Amino acid sequence: MKLARVSGTVVSTFNSPIFDEQRLLVCDYLTPTGELAGGYVIAVDVVSAAPGETVLILDEGTGARQIMGVSGGPIRAMVVGIVDDVTSESTDAG
Amino acid sequence: MKLARVSGTVVSTFNSPIFDEQRLLVCDYLTPTGELAGGYVIAVDVVSAAPGETVLILDEGTGARQIMGVSGGPIRAMVVGIVDDVTSESTDAG
Amino acid sequence: MKLARVSGTVVSTFNSPIFDEQRLLVCDYLTPTGELAGGYVIAVDVVSAAPGETVLILDEGTGARQIMGVSGGPIRAMVVGIVDDVTSESTDAG
Amino acid sequence: MKLARVSGTVVSTFNSPIFDEQRLLVCDYLTPTGELAGGYVIAVDVVSAAPGETVLILDEGTGARQIMGVSGGPIRAMVVGIVDDVTSESTDAG
Amino acid sequence: MKLARVSGTVVSTFNSPIFDEQRLLVCDYLTPTGELAGGYVIAVDVVSAAPGETVLILDEGTGARQIMGVSGGPIRAMVVGIVDDVTSESTDAG
Repeated sequence: MKLARVSGTVVSTFNSPIFDEQRLLVCDYLTPTGELAGGYVIAVDVVSAAPGETVLILDEGTGARQIMGVSGGPIRAMVVGIVDDVTSESTDAG
Repeated sequence: MKLARVSGTVVSTFNSPIFDEQRLLVCDYLTPTGELAGGYVIAVDVVSAAPGETVLILDEGTGARQIMGVSGGPIRAMVVGIVDDVTSESTDAG
Repeated sequence: MKLARVSGTVVSTFNSPIFDEQRLLVCDYLTPTGELAGGYVIAVDVVSAAPGETVLILDEGTGARQIMGVSGGPIRAMVVGIVDDVTSESTDAG
Repeated sequence: MKLARVSGTVVSTFNSPIFDEQRLLVCDYLTPTGELAGGYVIAVDVVSAAPGETVLILDEGTGARQIMGVSGGPIRAMVVGIVDDVTSESTDAG
Repeated sequence: MKLARVSGTVVSTFNSPIFDEQRLLVCDYLTPTGELAGGYVIAVDVVSAAPGETVLILDEGTGARQIMGVSGGPIRAMVVGIVDDVTSESTDAG
């Protein structure tokens, strides 16, 4: 998993019903110390994360589909947790 | 998923019937604010995206095959949605 | 999938019979406009691609094994198509 | 697998019971000679690694879920071993 | 697959019996022309590769587990072949 900050939302027209009623979030990847790490991902939100919140991103399709209770569907990245605290002594791992 | 812009098409000779009648699109990855992020992918089009449109790319084989209704086949990347709107406060996540 | 140009071959001693009679190609990744993009992959050839030809690379194990008709084996990258034409307006997606 | 050094922990609110009682570690990737390689991952700890220890990271969901004894769940990266010794003649592979 | 050169070994304490009696090798990625490409991987050795030898790396968990004859376990990268010869006209694909 990676740390990211929710920076926005995406509205899109899909051809699969799996996305009905799902929120898609723009999530900017962060370093362990909370700086922008470069890069982002569009992730399905299953924890009701709000813009500005730090979250945990899982980028793996099989696990994501299982969380959503579907056996198939166009999902790979998901916001799986809202981060309450990070304790890190990282100095240069951005 | 990632944001991308359709920039062209690919015509190719395949050894698998799964690609018959499928369009393959050249999709350039974008940042959340719509700039070119660097990098591209050749993706199967299932939403009838047109050149210049902003789309959502899923780069995961299992989900892609399920969308196409086949249990096996040489697919990994797929255009799964046409983006209507992106709201992002990303400042440096390219 | 990605575009690549076949630049050579690899001869290797394996511990798995899946590679018997298979050609392994050195494939250099290309941008949509045909420049070297940096990076390469060693891929199994199932379309009889020749050195210098532009090809489509699928880098996903499950799809690759299904194409080869085996349920298991040490395969991930495969040359799945020979590119006849690319139409792209990419300007900076290398 | 990759080498990494444990630099901290993450406390997060999840929507999946799979993480109950699990420790999530911030792990900074290392070169074979023990320098920071850039990049990090948030990994589930199954070997009771302590901050500062060098560990082996497996970043693959299917294997991670099997180790944890669950068939599904939002897991991809895992600390699978504590490194006792690395013998490497790497000179420039960071 | 990728080309790599074996540069060392890793000794580690694991929580999974799958690694008993297995050698873990530090493998530095190479370009097709045999230069260091940057980056490395810790791979399970199933071909008895020696330090300094050029090898083929498969970095995919499902194929790796099948080679080792186990249905589950913390494996993703594996040395699947010892390279006897590479013929490449790559000029700038590092």
